[in-house]
Amino acid sequence: MNAYLSSTPIPRVQLMTNNLVKRILNGDVRALASLMSLIEDGDPKTKAVLKAVYPHTGRAHVIGVTGAAGAGKSSLVERMAADFRRQKKTVGILAVDPTSRFSTGALLGDRIRMRDHFADPGVFIRSFATRGAGGGVSAAVRKAIHLLDAAEKDVIFVETIGVGQDQLEIAALAHTVVVVLTPQMGDEVQFLKAGLAEIAHILVVNKADLLGADDTLRQLKAFFGEEDLPVVSTSATQSEGITLLMALIEKHRRESLDNGSYPNKRIHLCRQELLSLLREKVFARLAKKIADRSFETEVKRVAEGQTDPYSAADRLARRIDI
Amino acid sequence: MNAYLSSTPIPRVQLMTNNLVKRILNGDVRALASLMSLIEDGDPKTKAVLKAVYPHTGRAHVIGVTGAAGAGKSSLVERMAADFRRQKKTVGILAVDPTSRFSTGALLGDRIRMRDHFADPGVFIRSFATRGAGGGVSAAVRKAIHLLDAAEKDVIFVETIGVGQDQLEIAALAHTVVVVLTPQMGDEVQFLKAGLAEIAHILVVNKADLLGADDTLRQLKAFFGEEDLPVVSTSATQSEGITLLMALIEKHRRESLDNGSYPNKRIHLCRQELLSLLREKVFARLAKKIADRSFETEVKRVAEGQTDPYSAADRLARRIDI
Repeated sequence: MNAYLSSTPIPRVQLMTNNLVKRILNGDVRALASLMSLIEDGDPKTKAVLKAVYPHTGRAHVIGVTGAAGAGKSSLVERMAADFRRQKKTVGILAVDPTSRFSTGALLGDRIRMRDHFADPGVFIRSFATRGAGGGVSAAVRKAIHLLDAAEKDVIFVETIGVGQDQLEIAALAHTVVVVLTPQMGDEVQFLKAGLAEIAHILVVNKADLLGADDTLRQLKAFFGEEDLPVVSTSATQSEGITLLMALIEKHRRESLDNGSYPNKRIHLCRQELLSLLREKVFARLAKKIADRSFETEVKRVAEGQTDPYSAADRLARRIDI
Repeated sequence: MNAYLSSTPIPRVQLMTNNLVKRILNGDVRALASLMSLIEDGDPKTKAVLKAVYPHTGRAHVIGVTGAAGAGKSSLVERMAADFRRQKKTVGILAVDPTSRFSTGALLGDRIRMRDHFADPGVFIRSFATRGAGGGVSAAVRKAIHLLDAAEKDVIFVETIGVGQDQLEIAALAHTVVVVLTPQMGDEVQFLKAGLAEIAHILVVNKADLLGADDTLRQLKAFFGEEDLPVVSTSATQSEGITLLMALIEKHRRESLDNGSYPNKRIHLCRQELLSLLREKVFARLAKKIADRSFETEVKRVAEGQTDPYSAADRLARRIDI
């Protein structure tokens, strides 16, 4: 119904939401940035906008790039982004900082290295903190991905420092996962191999000009075999590696579409997303319940040695109905 | 009551538990190892033993050592362990692998580098996977710590690869947290600084013989100030760094005891532990609830674009009473 003919005026909040939704769908950079800040803060106001833009998502190719600090992920992502731009594809980059739960976000700012792309409206770059997100890194990052997807970015990079849980969470929200290693990791690569196979679609040995790079590459290739998990070496000084990496990413995307695993992948990603939203709710419920004094009473009793934590948790679970 | 006089015989399970508890308290290596395997598997049989040994815990000094892959944590921990042994202190080392949720544990094995200590019964070393632990890395690792504590280890190292969530979780279970950096991390150290201050009690710049080490050290010292967060540089070839690091750890332990923050720390750690146990329970409950078909129905509806994930999560939360 036309708003002007309606007997009840459209509420101000609704108008603001409609306006924001329109701006997101048009790829308005300031609207994207301000909504992302609200998502970082866990602001419930974002929900209406996210619901409204959701039907416009599902087109973007989400590429997760993870690895240890110093592996050179940022430069790699930049070079890939430049390549996609040459193909006239629009790019979103989320640099996720999983440690920044405590920080005020000030240090995140926008990293100097990102200036190169700033002049290009086809690239949206954002450092993304996840403070306040009870469901882990992933719930908030997924929301940011949907925004960029609705804003018609063709490719969305999710770059995060870290192995372990953070890496698992990135794997659960990306179509293609690139894990970046360096020769410097040495023996610890052995330690990580088993986990990598389950997470990565493509392995990169970056800093290929460093001593030991060939060994690392050979070992990984021998361990995984070209078929199971492609391994490519890259370096800041050479571009062959990047070209091969881009080809592997495109191959993975196409194969996913061709062999029918894409619908399954979509179901898988939706399952992970619902799960992470439910976890958020469960945590919020738990946080509310333990605001109850009985929680602190049990904490004290454990600390004073009057009981063990397992019995205390059992008692609490019964009392607060978990 | 004496079991032989009792009219009802002690159940077999109870006898096995009593026997295991006795062996743990005596520091029996095989009993420790087999219980840790059960903890890794999330086996509920461990609960009775953990409850029984809990009153014998609270003596050990738990030192968390985290950092990126390749930072040299393992060698550092080994050298510190050797130092503690020279002081006649017994040592437990848990090398936590947060990515191994998927692995079968086979690759973890016991790393070659650990052989050095194997002949010494005063050191217990274990690679520790955390598959099956819904509450994250920390719930299972805490149980392993309690076992080692009850087995009268004076010092327990918890070593883990990783930044981000894994690092936060280690920080929530250790008395003293050592974060290991390397000069190779370069610019990403800037990115991490804010998070580090909240997590670390001592910063180590390892591989001090590498180019850029002095710069990294100077930058960190300038950023944090000696008072707020001590920074020490170490290298595999020199032992001064280790001596200083050991002194800083002892200083932190003693200051925590002296300034009365130790009781608070204990309450804080107990709070974190109870929270992680409750999270485990909540996740288990959630997992059971979403075994319901309504969950998969909603997943499909989201995947097919009939609804958005936020509305689906709301409906599910109402239906399964979260």
